[in-house]
Amino acid sequence: MRFVRYQANKGTTVHYGWIYNDLVGEIEGDIFGEFRRLEANLPLYTVRLLPPVIPGKIIACEWNYLDQTREFGRIISDMPTIFYKPTSSVIGMNDPIILPVVSSRVEQECELAVVIGRTARSVLPENAFDCIFGYTIANDVTARDLQMKEETWTRAKGFDSFCPLGPVIETDFEPADALLTCRVNGELRQMASTRDMLFPVQNLIAFISSIMTLYPGDVILTGTPVGSALLSPGDVVESQIDGIGQLVNPVQGQRL
Amino acid sequence: MRFVRYQANKGTTVHYGWIYNDLVGEIEGDIFGEFRRLEANLPLYTVRLLPPVIPGKIIACEWNYLDQTREFGRIISDMPTIFYKPTSSVIGMNDPIILPVVSSRVEQECELAVVIGRTARSVLPENAFDCIFGYTIANDVTARDLQMKEETWTRAKGFDSFCPLGPVIETDFEPADALLTCRVNGELRQMASTRDMLFPVQNLIAFISSIMTLYPGDVILTGTPVGSALLSPGDVVESQIDGIGQLVNPVQGQRL
Repeated sequence: MRFVRYQANKGTTVHYGWIYNDLVGEIEGDIFGEFRRLEANLPLYTVRLLPPVIPGKIIACEWNYLDQTREFGRIISDMPTIFYKPTSSVIGMNDPIILPVVSSRVEQECELAVVIGRTARSVLPENAFDCIFGYTIANDVTARDLQMKEETWTRAKGFDSFCPLGPVIETDFEPADALLTCRVNGELRQMASTRDMLFPVQNLIAFISSIMTLYPGDVILTGTPVGSALLSPGDVVESQIDGIGQLVNPVQGQRL
Repeated sequence: MRFVRYQANKGTTVHYGWIYNDLVGEIEGDIFGEFRRLEANLPLYTVRLLPPVIPGKIIACEWNYLDQTREFGRIISDMPTIFYKPTSSVIGMNDPIILPVVSSRVEQECELAVVIGRTARSVLPENAFDCIFGYTIANDVTARDLQMKEETWTRAKGFDSFCPLGPVIETDFEPADALLTCRVNGELRQMASTRDMLFPVQNLIAFISSIMTLYPGDVILTGTPVGSALLSPGDVVESQIDGIGQLVNPVQGQRL
């Protein structure tokens, strides 16, 4: 099933919903607990899609595809390299990625994102799928110049708008071998299969949950393949994962 | 005023409250918005104190006191070194700090913590106090061995229980020159004034809000002075800031 968060009729009320063909139905209750689906009767094009979840925390993985890790001249680690993105960086479908003035090299990183559905602590890889609610698309937007020169990646990965997420959470998805593509202004920048992850989804969840408890709504970004490159004002980024959908975000310069 | 979060009568319901002498009064409403104080009639010793806030995000500062920065042989930076702690690491008064088996050197770091009260984006230092709700005490518990050898501090700073916070949020507090002390098993480990911060509170808020929007309930940890040292099972950590109070946490080994 595909879940969305949305506003309808140009209103400010936020709803959870489900998608049937190109229609949205409202959901009553908690998508991570008890809920009830109402009839899908709102044409999808009439609603404003929001980020499909408000994460309690976002944990992301860098250097998780072999070709990207080599591109950056890095040694393959025996452990995932993980970091946080702040919840304030989340934007949704069609929301603009804002280029901060303090960086001269912001790049896109299209990624498969996992949405946690159950509280998980020290889970084994073979049980990791039990705590997954579904999957969505993320872009781990990165100020590469800051990442390369600063001790922590807090700035490089944490500016407002640096975590496009959505548009849907797909629960019927097989993450072992899904095609991921990213186009900027229609030009292909990234194309890879999730089977090329150095640490697949279940190993990432096992590793992260050995450190910290994962809660429903937490999001894990699973790393990006080779092909990140400069974003400029006016660009349009299309992040796509077969079986989930397409996340589109325009790029803007920062207003001063 | 002093704010707390608590459970009363061994119940599971969580309340916000205020403290008058040694009595707790319930608060109806949103402490960051509209609220009403009810009569303070519960003896403080009868309630279970919880972390005084559930932060949306926690941003922390390393190397913010000259003597501690020198102790680690570091060059003074012209910019704060900031990182995130995950919300899953927060514990409250009397909750145990759990030593993870993968670290052999977990250390305490007593710190002044700022609780944000208003949405803040790109605020100037001279306006920073307008967005502060109040102050509390934090311990930025750190697996020093992991911090020193891993590219990101996600593990070193992020294990469950690595962010004791509380017991109260004090709104009537002057952060410019407050005495901070930390004792382990009664023995003094850290003593400094907040006037020795390299980047004082208003500059930290200005810097962080230039990167990311701060929201009510977000927490900023302002760095620790010299004197962090090894924690062992059975230790008791007392983090104290004059004018706010004392945060006490026992230390436990990890159960396997």
